Amino acid sequence: MRKSVFVFRVRYAETDQMGIAHHGNYLTWFEMGRSTLCREWGKPYASWEDEGVFLPVVEASCRYKSPARYDEELSLHTSVEQVKPHSVTFKYRLYRGDKLLAEGKTRHAFATPDGKLIRGGHPLIRWLEERSTERP
Amino acid sequence: MRKSVFVFRVRYAETDQMGIAHHGNYLTWFEMGRSTLCREWGKPYASWEDEGVFLPVVEASCRYKSPARYDEELSLHTSVEQVKPHSVTFKYRLYRGDKLLAEGKTRHAFATPDGKLIRGGHPLIRWLEERSTERP
Amino acid sequence: MRKSVFVFRVRYAETDQMGIAHHGNYLTWFEMGRSTLCREWGKPYASWEDEGVFLPVVEASCRYKSPARYDEELSLHTSVEQVKPHSVTFKYRLYRGDKLLAEGKTRHAFATPDGKLIRGGHPLIRWLEERSTERP
Amino acid sequence: MRKSVFVFRVRYAETDQMGIAHHGNYLTWFEMGRSTLCREWGKPYASWEDEGVFLPVVEASCRYKSPARYDEELSLHTSVEQVKPHSVTFKYRLYRGDKLLAEGKTRHAFATPDGKLIRGGHPLIRWLEERSTERP
Repeated sequence: MRKSVFVFRVRYAETDQMGIAHHGNYLTWFEMGRSTLCREWGKPYASWEDEGVFLPVVEASCRYKSPARYDEELSLHTSVEQVKPHSVTFKYRLYRGDKLLAEGKTRHAFATPDGKLIRGGHPLIRWLEERSTERP
Repeated sequence: MRKSVFVFRVRYAETDQMGIAHHGNYLTWFEMGRSTLCREWGKPYASWEDEGVFLPVVEASCRYKSPARYDEELSLHTSVEQVKPHSVTFKYRLYRGDKLLAEGKTRHAFATPDGKLIRGGHPLIRWLEERSTERP
Repeated sequence: MRKSVFVFRVRYAETDQMGIAHHGNYLTWFEMGRSTLCREWGKPYASWEDEGVFLPVVEASCRYKSPARYDEELSLHTSVEQVKPHSVTFKYRLYRGDKLLAEGKTRHAFATPDGKLIRGGHPLIRWLEERSTERP
Repeated sequence: MRKSVFVFRVRYAETDQMGIAHHGNYLTWFEMGRSTLCREWGKPYASWEDEGVFLPVVEASCRYKSPARYDEELSLHTSVEQVKPHSVTFKYRLYRGDKLLAEGKTRHAFATPDGKLIRGGHPLIRWLEERSTERP
């Protein structure tokens, strides 16, 4: 399965008084992973919204294995786990060097700008399915 | 000058590894002060946007005098400092009990939904001017 | 099972360009639910850290059923689902009026200030277990 | 005056329902600019804290000239404006291509880990003064 790699540093504002990156930020990092994947695959997410397809999150989960700290350089690996007619699931693995720090998933509906669900058949959804099963 | 008081607690996510509330949050707190003021004065900011008047921030400043910490209950005093034909300035004073922790200002343009400036004359702007000079 | 209710409003800064509250904020809201529960039950989380017991998140999940919007007043119901010798699971249900908007869970380790796991036996852990099974 | 350039993209989570990057994020971006400058100049800010020197923000300001939008690539130029015995002022200019989007300043005290002010004389402070006046 093709994946996208996004490299970034932990911001000071992302730490909390425990001295580590606050767990809430990981969902935002995962979102950057999705953005990077869509851009690299040739359809930036901004163009999805321009075409009237929104991807609201309907489910998210994360397992935190080891903390991340300020200014550390992390690598986020993002892939598409599953495309269904009415939802897509992305999978994330966060590393510092070789060490796995966290892994998570988000599931997204396909929705119109006013929040109604698009149930399959949209060209962008088929595109996502085809691209995610291509050989790298 | 009439003012609005908003009471809230510092979130754990708002702390950083210095063990205090991160300075970036104060602008978000000021925004909650504006929201509270508009709601208390009878025109929630959501209704401004419904009527096509947006208040993008064009200038913001804050002086941090003493740190705020997790779970502390703070009081934010918000008032309108000045209404001009094309901008409004809000003023903020943040307290823990009697102790002044920070003070700041934000200046806002009046803009249409697509970001064009509205230069005076809008009923909402006159309303804001009148309300801000009323006796409490 | 005893629960704690925390009432708050969605901040403007918490919205995104989809016009709804960004999904990442829900983990921060859940954290406010935990803070409120600990405070209401008589042991604010700040005092846990003062006593050398930290509760890092090891797992978090959320199902988003219906979006929340700017300035809406929401109610977050927090309860303790399970206390084990080495972890505690909190459960959250987020409402606007009677409507369930989201539900989630977080699992936490018990750790020392330098991040080592505390495996059972700490008085605070027993306290949490006892309180969570009390009748309201 | 030597400056540091930090290039990044606007996160989706950083947008608000106005469809632009929320103004509160700019202070966090400025902080990334400072982190980059310290790292590039050879003393990452993490090492400052390790040596017992903290740089709490005592004053911050920003002028917003033109909005930034999701996924845009921005360049933040950071420089040291002034080093005094008891404070340092950083200056920021944010660009999209050649277009200046915002400019701001932050002033910082030098403090010990427990928040007491360090008034001049610390080697790190002299280092900062010397480096900031070097030719690039």
